[in-house]
Amino acid sequence: MSNRRLFLKQSALSIGATLASGSLLKAEGLTAKKSGIEIKANDTILFQGDSITDASRKRDTALPNDIAGMGRGYAMIAASVLLNKFAEKNLKIYNRGISGNKVPQLDARWQADCLDLKPNILSILVGVNDYWHKRNGKYEGSAESYREQYRKLLDRTLLEFPNVKLIIGEPFGVKNVKHVDDSWFPEFAQYQQAARDIAKEYKATLIPYQSIFDEAEKRNSGAYWTSDGVHTTLGGANLMAESWLATVR
Amino acid sequence: MSNRRLFLKQSALSIGATLASGSLLKAEGLTAKKSGIEIKANDTILFQGDSITDASRKRDTALPNDIAGMGRGYAMIAASVLLNKFAEKNLKIYNRGISGNKVPQLDARWQADCLDLKPNILSILVGVNDYWHKRNGKYEGSAESYREQYRKLLDRTLLEFPNVKLIIGEPFGVKNVKHVDDSWFPEFAQYQQAARDIAKEYKATLIPYQSIFDEAEKRNSGAYWTSDGVHTTLGGANLMAESWLATVR
Repeated sequence: MSNRRLFLKQSALSIGATLASGSLLKAEGLTAKKSGIEIKANDTILFQGDSITDASRKRDTALPNDIAGMGRGYAMIAASVLLNKFAEKNLKIYNRGISGNKVPQLDARWQADCLDLKPNILSILVGVNDYWHKRNGKYEGSAESYREQYRKLLDRTLLEFPNVKLIIGEPFGVKNVKHVDDSWFPEFAQYQQAARDIAKEYKATLIPYQSIFDEAEKRNSGAYWTSDGVHTTLGGANLMAESWLATVR
Repeated sequence: MSNRRLFLKQSALSIGATLASGSLLKAEGLTAKKSGIEIKANDTILFQGDSITDASRKRDTALPNDIAGMGRGYAMIAASVLLNKFAEKNLKIYNRGISGNKVPQLDARWQADCLDLKPNILSILVGVNDYWHKRNGKYEGSAESYREQYRKLLDRTLLEFPNVKLIIGEPFGVKNVKHVDDSWFPEFAQYQQAARDIAKEYKATLIPYQSIFDEAEKRNSGAYWTSDGVHTTLGGANLMAESWLATVR
């Protein structure tokens, strides 16, 4: 670092205005990024959602940062990075995703599984079951009811924690892998649109998982990233964790 | 470092040409590093060891890249990064660590759990039980027998796969966390020395986990990184995975 500063000082004569303005540093990504949600000391971070978040977590461990309680998915990987990178911040990280959940199930357990934990940062990924269970005739809902229920859940949360920082994951389906095919669209896209709209309306950070998986298919097949179009493989879990981590600093 | 100094010297004279040639990027370490083991297309990577590697993996899944079969430790986290970052390389990654193993137990299952998998990159972390079980009176061994058994295991491996790339993890103990205290030393240090010597002798990449955990204690307590002085927490697992990943490119 001191070498670098020395260099900047010495070469300012010849390189002139570029260095003086700091734009060379910026161009090279050498200045700290100021974008993204700032992780603060003693923050509580909560991952909420369905099976993709749950990822076979051990549900009888209520403690934060519990390795078995974090599951085998993106939440576990992201949490491990946070706990290492921000070790001095004494973070409390919880995974409270539960397989099969739609927004109404989140709402039913929101007091114990969200509000009581007093999150500073709340990450939610929900929606694929709201569509899927309706499609299978197990549930009477629609993209509109999903949108309204989701908004009420956030209203309820913000009433108690007006300063909570929200991260909303776009529900996704990877086509031509087991459960997911063209017949999911355009109806499923309405649920995705609702999640994106809600993120904007509530000033949440959106993670556009559908585009992220679409883009990843340029590097390997959909079956490489998800086991059934919905649930992640190990590579897919890391892809999601990487995207999640890009939202914080 | 020498590149940077060289650049400092050159820069005052010909910064324009330097920028154009891209050597500024190189001097600042912004181009791909050429150090470390190169991950190649279709490589098979095997994590071997004891409980720290095992990390509650599901043992009835023999397939590579299996999310449950990878456990909840550093191997799982490192594998997830590799499968994302090198998605186009179609890697096969296995975890075959088993809790409680010492070198003799690795040797007993080496044909099925190493040689038959035909690894291109073989990562081994073993030694804490070789010391610990002896200490507890459950095993008659010594740092010297550990060293000789370990060398034979590697000789056996190299006889079949002379080009396998070896990564050897230094066994570690985090003092004043449950099982580990001053009484482990200096005897345990002889096992650590043996692992370091073997890495050098066999031209393996050494991961100096003891120093890595010692250094991490500047950021948070030993109990933050390991649950009992030996087994990792979520943050500790990421610390190990990060160190492991730094050995490859």
